[in-house]
Amino acid sequence: MSSQTTKTATWAAADWGTSHLRLWPMDATGMALTRIDSDRGMGAIVKDDYESVLIAQLEPYLPTTGTMPVVVCGMAGSRQGWAEAPYSSTPCPPPSLAESTKVPTVNARLSVHILPGVKQVDPADVMRGEETQIAGVLAANPDLDGVICLPGTHTKWVSVSDGQIERFTTFMSGEAFHLISSESVLRHTLAEDGWDEAAFAKGCEIARKDPAALLSAMFSLRAEALLADLDPVAARARLSGLLVGAEVEAARPSWSEKTVIIVGETGMASAYAAALSLQGADAKIANAEKSTLAGLCAAYAHLNQEV
Amino acid sequence: MSSQTTKTATWAAADWGTSHLRLWPMDATGMALTRIDSDRGMGAIVKDDYESVLIAQLEPYLPTTGTMPVVVCGMAGSRQGWAEAPYSSTPCPPPSLAESTKVPTVNARLSVHILPGVKQVDPADVMRGEETQIAGVLAANPDLDGVICLPGTHTKWVSVSDGQIERFTTFMSGEAFHLISSESVLRHTLAEDGWDEAAFAKGCEIARKDPAALLSAMFSLRAEALLADLDPVAARARLSGLLVGAEVEAARPSWSEKTVIIVGETGMASAYAAALSLQGADAKIANAEKSTLAGLCAAYAHLNQEV
Repeated sequence: MSSQTTKTATWAAADWGTSHLRLWPMDATGMALTRIDSDRGMGAIVKDDYESVLIAQLEPYLPTTGTMPVVVCGMAGSRQGWAEAPYSSTPCPPPSLAESTKVPTVNARLSVHILPGVKQVDPADVMRGEETQIAGVLAANPDLDGVICLPGTHTKWVSVSDGQIERFTTFMSGEAFHLISSESVLRHTLAEDGWDEAAFAKGCEIARKDPAALLSAMFSLRAEALLADLDPVAARARLSGLLVGAEVEAARPSWSEKTVIIVGETGMASAYAAALSLQGADAKIANAEKSTLAGLCAAYAHLNQEV
Repeated sequence: MSSQTTKTATWAAADWGTSHLRLWPMDATGMALTRIDSDRGMGAIVKDDYESVLIAQLEPYLPTTGTMPVVVCGMAGSRQGWAEAPYSSTPCPPPSLAESTKVPTVNARLSVHILPGVKQVDPADVMRGEETQIAGVLAANPDLDGVICLPGTHTKWVSVSDGQIERFTTFMSGEAFHLISSESVLRHTLAEDGWDEAAFAKGCEIARKDPAALLSAMFSLRAEALLADLDPVAARARLSGLLVGAEVEAARPSWSEKTVIIVGETGMASAYAAALSLQGADAKIANAEKSTLAGLCAAYAHLNQEV
């Protein structure tokens, strides 16, 4: 009775990325007891730290007897992470616990399973973490035949059909926006934040008409600031529109006449939805964190069936 | 007789850019007495420093009586430079001394003339310094009807006809290469130097077939490094090929069936010539520094006619 307090978890879900660790201690009914957000991402720790970081965060939720499964997705499974979880290869369903890597732990109360990422051989591409969000989207949309767009530093467009990841393409648009806006000559021209919907749409339109001209349309922002006092907030939004618009245009074969689901946080997901709408497609938005948790739950359910 | 030593200059030519100052004390026959290279570019000094920097460098060459004209091109003429030399507007010939800005100096032995840059209103674009290289190319090729490509941090493609700059387009390819190779996730994948001609050609070919896919073809380098041990030197050259190839393809309307002259230093000029050749055009290469000096000499000749 004392061990069955409301706070003891049945298992834990973990999204362990480069910059953060997100943890959900889960009860037997599939509900999260809480949500733990930590800055102990892969970039902040070394291999030997993973177990102690996990225990420090989960201690209050650990059962006093038996082991607690922890299902992990994300960069913790990369070569530089906790333990390498080899990629599944397209076409494939989002990896389940059957393909996971069991990580040995000193503490016997933990049973850690890292989910693999997914690779594509030609054209070469990789994902780690997004496959679990895709599993979450497929859990809610099992018959999806379309494309899942996951905006981020490295945005992914993933074609899914019959519960499988068929193929995918990663664009460096997010990272390019960050570098160009903060490090290039455009840093003098762009506001640090703020949004202008019409300027974003203008960038999308320029990119739709001539997606190849991205590198010249960018410099034109600088010139317009010098010659015509272009507003810094409009400049920032137009740069975003140029990059997202060029990406959406390049990804057209994957979304044209297909169902599109965007998995993301509010701001970026809305921007991608707006760009798709301007370029002729409707998209539904799925919450990124909920999709991750749903994917980890789907993987745990699979573990439960096997055990 | 004592004032007419071989070292006294008749005038001086100056290319005053963001990161460097290049000076040529010139004799009456149009020959450079020497070439002075200094790191006192616009980025390293403030407005009040310009005159003293110039005098420190030119002191041994100054005449004891009378004034010495100094003809300046480059960023010294920008708002953040010595004195703003307002842009000429396309279509226009490369600006001459008639459009230059005379800068007041404390020292009466100097007579400083800053050449303007050139602007284009729509699409917005600007150049400062390149117009003088163009003047140099036109001095050697007065009947040129074609395009001049000036590779650099911000590469320019300039359509010229009847001695005029008709229109131009600036691409941020050089700066994008620098940022992506040194600051993005690709920094783990790319060698710091080295060259692979076949990998550069492969990048050009990928870009020629699908110039819109630049941001995904870049990420593929990272994935190929992870999955297939892509050679870091080949990765570096292919990234360059992707950027230059996409730029050359986007600039196709300006060079197709035209004479192309590339103004540049050996490495970059050869890479652009190779990309153009792969994409179906022959280009001649003109030395960048010689073109600058020839342009400054053309401007000085014009001053001479007027005085």
